[in-house]
Amino acid sequence: MEDALRLFLKEDIGTGDITTESICRGERVRAVIRAKDEGILAGMPFAIKVFELLGGVGVITSKMDGVTFKKGDELLVIEGSAESILKGERLALNILQRLSGIATLTRKFVERLEGTRIEILDTRKTTPGFRIFEKYAVRVGGGKNHRFALYDMVLIKDNHKKVAGSITEAVRRVRQVVSPAYKIEVEVENIEELKQALDCGVDIVMLDNFTPDGVKEAVKVAKGSVKLEVSGNITPENITLYAIEGVDYISCGFITHSARWLDMSLKIV
Amino acid sequence: MEDALRLFLKEDIGTGDITTESICRGERVRAVIRAKDEGILAGMPFAIKVFELLGGVGVITSKMDGVTFKKGDELLVIEGSAESILKGERLALNILQRLSGIATLTRKFVERLEGTRIEILDTRKTTPGFRIFEKYAVRVGGGKNHRFALYDMVLIKDNHKKVAGSITEAVRRVRQVVSPAYKIEVEVENIEELKQALDCGVDIVMLDNFTPDGVKEAVKVAKGSVKLEVSGNITPENITLYAIEGVDYISCGFITHSARWLDMSLKIV
Amino acid sequence: MEDALRLFLKEDIGTGDITTESICRGERVRAVIRAKDEGILAGMPFAIKVFELLGGVGVITSKMDGVTFKKGDELLVIEGSAESILKGERLALNILQRLSGIATLTRKFVERLEGTRIEILDTRKTTPGFRIFEKYAVRVGGGKNHRFALYDMVLIKDNHKKVAGSITEAVRRVRQVVSPAYKIEVEVENIEELKQALDCGVDIVMLDNFTPDGVKEAVKVAKGSVKLEVSGNITPENITLYAIEGVDYISCGFITHSARWLDMSLKIV
Amino acid sequence: MEDALRLFLKEDIGTGDITTESICRGERVRAVIRAKDEGILAGMPFAIKVFELLGGVGVITSKMDGVTFKKGDELLVIEGSAESILKGERLALNILQRLSGIATLTRKFVERLEGTRIEILDTRKTTPGFRIFEKYAVRVGGGKNHRFALYDMVLIKDNHKKVAGSITEAVRRVRQVVSPAYKIEVEVENIEELKQALDCGVDIVMLDNFTPDGVKEAVKVAKGSVKLEVSGNITPENITLYAIEGVDYISCGFITHSARWLDMSLKIV
Amino acid sequence: MEDALRLFLKEDIGTGDITTESICRGERVRAVIRAKDEGILAGMPFAIKVFELLGGVGVITSKMDGVTFKKGDELLVIEGSAESILKGERLALNILQRLSGIATLTRKFVERLEGTRIEILDTRKTTPGFRIFEKYAVRVGGGKNHRFALYDMVLIKDNHKKVAGSITEAVRRVRQVVSPAYKIEVEVENIEELKQALDCGVDIVMLDNFTPDGVKEAVKVAKGSVKLEVSGNITPENITLYAIEGVDYISCGFITHSARWLDMSLKIV
Amino acid sequence: MEDALRLFLKEDIGTGDITTESICRGERVRAVIRAKDEGILAGMPFAIKVFELLGGVGVITSKMDGVTFKKGDELLVIEGSAESILKGERLALNILQRLSGIATLTRKFVERLEGTRIEILDTRKTTPGFRIFEKYAVRVGGGKNHRFALYDMVLIKDNHKKVAGSITEAVRRVRQVVSPAYKIEVEVENIEELKQALDCGVDIVMLDNFTPDGVKEAVKVAKGSVKLEVSGNITPENITLYAIEGVDYISCGFITHSARWLDMSLKIV
Repeated sequence: MEDALRLFLKEDIGTGDITTESICRGERVRAVIRAKDEGILAGMPFAIKVFELLGGVGVITSKMDGVTFKKGDELLVIEGSAESILKGERLALNILQRLSGIATLTRKFVERLEGTRIEILDTRKTTPGFRIFEKYAVRVGGGKNHRFALYDMVLIKDNHKKVAGSITEAVRRVRQVVSPAYKIEVEVENIEELKQALDCGVDIVMLDNFTPDGVKEAVKVAKGSVKLEVSGNITPENITLYAIEGVDYISCGFITHSARWLDMSLKIV
Repeated sequence: MEDALRLFLKEDIGTGDITTESICRGERVRAVIRAKDEGILAGMPFAIKVFELLGGVGVITSKMDGVTFKKGDELLVIEGSAESILKGERLALNILQRLSGIATLTRKFVERLEGTRIEILDTRKTTPGFRIFEKYAVRVGGGKNHRFALYDMVLIKDNHKKVAGSITEAVRRVRQVVSPAYKIEVEVENIEELKQALDCGVDIVMLDNFTPDGVKEAVKVAKGSVKLEVSGNITPENITLYAIEGVDYISCGFITHSARWLDMSLKIV
Repeated sequence: MEDALRLFLKEDIGTGDITTESICRGERVRAVIRAKDEGILAGMPFAIKVFELLGGVGVITSKMDGVTFKKGDELLVIEGSAESILKGERLALNILQRLSGIATLTRKFVERLEGTRIEILDTRKTTPGFRIFEKYAVRVGGGKNHRFALYDMVLIKDNHKKVAGSITEAVRRVRQVVSPAYKIEVEVENIEELKQALDCGVDIVMLDNFTPDGVKEAVKVAKGSVKLEVSGNITPENITLYAIEGVDYISCGFITHSARWLDMSLKIV
Repeated sequence: MEDALRLFLKEDIGTGDITTESICRGERVRAVIRAKDEGILAGMPFAIKVFELLGGVGVITSKMDGVTFKKGDELLVIEGSAESILKGERLALNILQRLSGIATLTRKFVERLEGTRIEILDTRKTTPGFRIFEKYAVRVGGGKNHRFALYDMVLIKDNHKKVAGSITEAVRRVRQVVSPAYKIEVEVENIEELKQALDCGVDIVMLDNFTPDGVKEAVKVAKGSVKLEVSGNITPENITLYAIEGVDYISCGFITHSARWLDMSLKIV
Repeated sequence: MEDALRLFLKEDIGTGDITTESICRGERVRAVIRAKDEGILAGMPFAIKVFELLGGVGVITSKMDGVTFKKGDELLVIEGSAESILKGERLALNILQRLSGIATLTRKFVERLEGTRIEILDTRKTTPGFRIFEKYAVRVGGGKNHRFALYDMVLIKDNHKKVAGSITEAVRRVRQVVSPAYKIEVEVENIEELKQALDCGVDIVMLDNFTPDGVKEAVKVAKGSVKLEVSGNITPENITLYAIEGVDYISCGFITHSARWLDMSLKIV
Repeated sequence: MEDALRLFLKEDIGTGDITTESICRGERVRAVIRAKDEGILAGMPFAIKVFELLGGVGVITSKMDGVTFKKGDELLVIEGSAESILKGERLALNILQRLSGIATLTRKFVERLEGTRIEILDTRKTTPGFRIFEKYAVRVGGGKNHRFALYDMVLIKDNHKKVAGSITEAVRRVRQVVSPAYKIEVEVENIEELKQALDCGVDIVMLDNFTPDGVKEAVKVAKGSVKLEVSGNITPENITLYAIEGVDYISCGFITHSARWLDMSLKIV
């Protein structure tokens, strides 16, 4: 992640912060990042790392990722080189605001599932180049991560089935080549496909765009022989309809792609 | 941008798409990206480039960035290597969904200003590592870009003033060092500061968190001698209040950080 | 892998092949890579890519990865720029000789297991920087890959148990954080630990340095409720002793770290 | 070399060591790397650097490269972050095992030449991307390095002669362009070619696949006017046949491509 | 800039400084960089950084950038690892000699303009890959930088006008797309074009290859409504002819492309 | 070199050429690079590569490196995308102007040595990051390259002698470790040191800052047993004084660090 942070600093500073570099002359200041919204904090270790990479800045006090904050709360107090603080301000805030937004929204989904043993999973619907951070924020919010990318788990989707001809053939092709280190998941559209997937002995089945009743039937058919993941346009409004006994995971892109930024500001004091 | 797209592909594919690579065996297919939402299209050249980088895929038809699309519209039809199409699917969609969301929201702001000569500007509140794409989407939506980063324009903000002691001193320090190729903008909190900025002969003044009445007074004080930019929590709801004769720009982070993804899907046909 | 090949070319050519660049003046030649050993071919797509990256070289005939070759066989015939052929010669041969050596040795292990349903797995005992190629060669030889690296599967080893205190606690800590997309494997030293691992419901158990009798007992204890992997100093000499009904995988570092290079040469004809 | 080590860590850790990161919680431990084979140690500075790059680990005791070790010897004792030790374990071992294998095999060749002034040289038959380490191990074992790559010495081989038409023409073309900073070596197949090479006044002649008698004749013909290098399928078995007065170097790919890994293990104590 | 320095070290050291690494055995020495020419010092922070990156070297005394030095002056005294000092010697000197040359030449131009308010600007006629350092040296010499590159200011040159058809059309096209954050400069060949540029309301006009009389007329026409930059074959000999009241900037490539290196040496004492 | 050209394009274009990208709309034009000075051409393959990398540009006619050109000569005529031509213009010119300057100055030195067999060598006094291009230009001008960097030849200089204690000891240390693939050169200050170097049997001796009479004596002492290189403040004025029978090379930093840029321009026609 440090490499990524360096890239982000390069994006914003490039050949130099012409304003800050011409104004600052070694001044040392104290600065506070304060919440102007409420939510769950995420991204603090990265925000701090940004100032560390710029150098000459120390942390006075800092809230930890996962805590709940209210409007007006001090989230981070730092002290040191004014130049580094001003150069890192926007990147640190962009990270904190975006990640806290995701953690806060994830928490909301997780709370709706309280009392069940169903876990909230994220998806690959993340901002290009920023996935590792967004998936981190999901964990901070109490969710679990789905596979990170295309290389670390087999997920046979609709389009794969079309290429292979059937679920059975797709699984067969996968098993010929792919390391047994990886789980195999299959996306199914209906009970018929679910049965095929069960016959193949896969690890997880994704029930794609099933109605709550469809999910209930799937649970009966699967009889606990496979992990079941519910997926497809899950929102805070409809999630409780899917909190059905026998479901293992509910995955939703909403927690990453529809999270709003939480407002924060950095002020020299 | 091609370098960035390669990085994004690396993020998602890494050591290999284990599902697709084991299932595909040279199949050639046709696939369609279809809208499941309505809005302004943005990101198509990048989506196409993703498939080009993966190789063996040709474009059959494609809508151009900036067009309005409706639910169900075909946005892109491609044909070629099933492997490349399946590997690039998610990245292409992530780009199109996020950028079209930004373009669509920007257009909404721009439309509110129709009939005025005020321009909508973006900010540096962008997803780390993805700024060049998000700023592109703002232009597609009819907005203009503010500075790209810290290296290409001087913007003296609140915290800079605190370090330098005053606007006047901050501008003086900047002029000693900074290339005359760059414009100087100063953020002001009140009419008093505006007057100081005017005395310094800067290029643009940002009226930060002014009320509409405050903006009107600022216009009178400035008398057209400087470009005026209104900034601070501008939303679709309040923007028309700030559409005041004499204002040159309204900048808002909202168009990038609060844009929702527009839904789209890729299907092999 | 193309990035890696570029790095390898840089390692060997750097600021320029001073011999070849001063001698060649646009000559076009035909060259043959011929086997001076026998075995299973692996690495041909990469060898060809090396010449492609250098440019101006076309393939006339080429054997495919996985075929058996004898001493004296023509493996690849290329034609084109003498300069590119001479610059790429050593890298192409280094890849083919090393990978064919691994594929050939793997095949030997696989053949010893014929008639069983046990699969040969590789390990992470690979040459630093060259793993993706070496694991490819294992697949060409008929083996399967174990996890690629530390990021794509959970494998709780001896040292992890010491840190966590017990297998049970280690698995508990993993389950709190790690994505359900990943399988969990536990290395066990004895039947007692195997029972603990079974209680935790993990996906795979690695029987580390078990005697054949120990393995037989483990099979009885596990009763098919978990995948069993035999590991620890497996050689061509002792592997059949471990080909026990109920074992799923035998993993060995020997196939990568003890494979000898097969001799080949490139000659301009 | 530090850049290379970072690449190797990236290969193995990538987006994170999911097992270790979820199990470790700041524990500090002591760990020992112990030999399970005997030989000459090589690679210790790189193994230590691996842990340094991961951070929070200090060396308690360490054997130095070049020492002879026996089965059971402690090679390295480190103390510190359990997380860093577990993450670096495999890479550190892979380096030590491979490089010690090369140093040990090289030493064997060097010992066969004791009492002569002939030096053992390596070749470019090294694992792609790992050459700088493998050549280092050769030096630790008492060998000398041949040229590092194509850019730092002229070596006119068989195929170059075919392109240029003759040794004389090849040397002439080289002398027109190449910096006098570089030595020129020519590979010859027979005494006739040796005479041509001598006429050209080159620095070194490589006697390629000569019989011992052929080498003796070459020594007589060369009369000490050029350095002589014997090359071609030299093994521990046949090397003493080539230890002929008047030979300066014996080069062999065997010491790098046929070295076996020496067994070692890392244990938390 | 640190990244660039690392690249430069790689260019010079690559796989290792074979002379220094074989000779040095941990010796610690003191070394002095001494001027063998006179001039304005530039580049010292980078020279020091070179030794820092190599490690084990401390600064005893150092002159600061911008000071005037005479032949024989001690510019830098360092102490520490002989190996690092010898490895960094040439790069440190190359930087100091080239940059001090530029600063010294720039100062000469600046002095010719003393008593006027005209500023000396550099151009993009810099050594590829080394621009950021050369532009820094211009500032040390008392000059100002023109735009850094093609991305941070609009400069409509002769060839752009040919493509667009006219200055007016070129400016119109720019205004449609380009961020208002950037200044617009137009290069004009004659008074007619100057008038067109004035009508477009651009920020700066470059008078390209005007005679001193032409410049005087331009000043009259512009009446202070725009910044005026004189450009084209300005040398120390002719610059005072262009020091005309009303001119804002004189830009010249001469200060970067025709600066001679100042002689310096590093000696171990 | 292509990697370097990409870096240089990035330096100049970065996030985009805002002028050219907003003005060009697919226009295709013809452009001419014309000399405004006279000299020896160098760098044309790189200039052409710059336009190739930008895409959509073809070469109509082009002079070859090494030809003599006069003021007004057409050096390159290209045709294609106006956007690519305008973006690459400055980089292409910077390369051609700088490299042609070096080639032209080198030729001047070479001509002074006509009728002798002495070769002109360059040094490591090159612009950081641009060495490979500057050394190429030396070759175009008829000079030969000295070692490229610290890794490809041993050169024992004054400071190395101080560390080792003597020339003899320095050579001894080098011979212990360094590959026999590399030549050994020693810099000597006087006849006494020359004798020491001869006793060590090195390949080349550099006579550092010798007077012409000193050089004559050195030639007598060396008696042809070693290559002799004259070095130290060689200029076009004094070089003929050093053109002494028995000298093999004259090396000078002057040809790279004091070459002036030759003037050229690119015009759309």
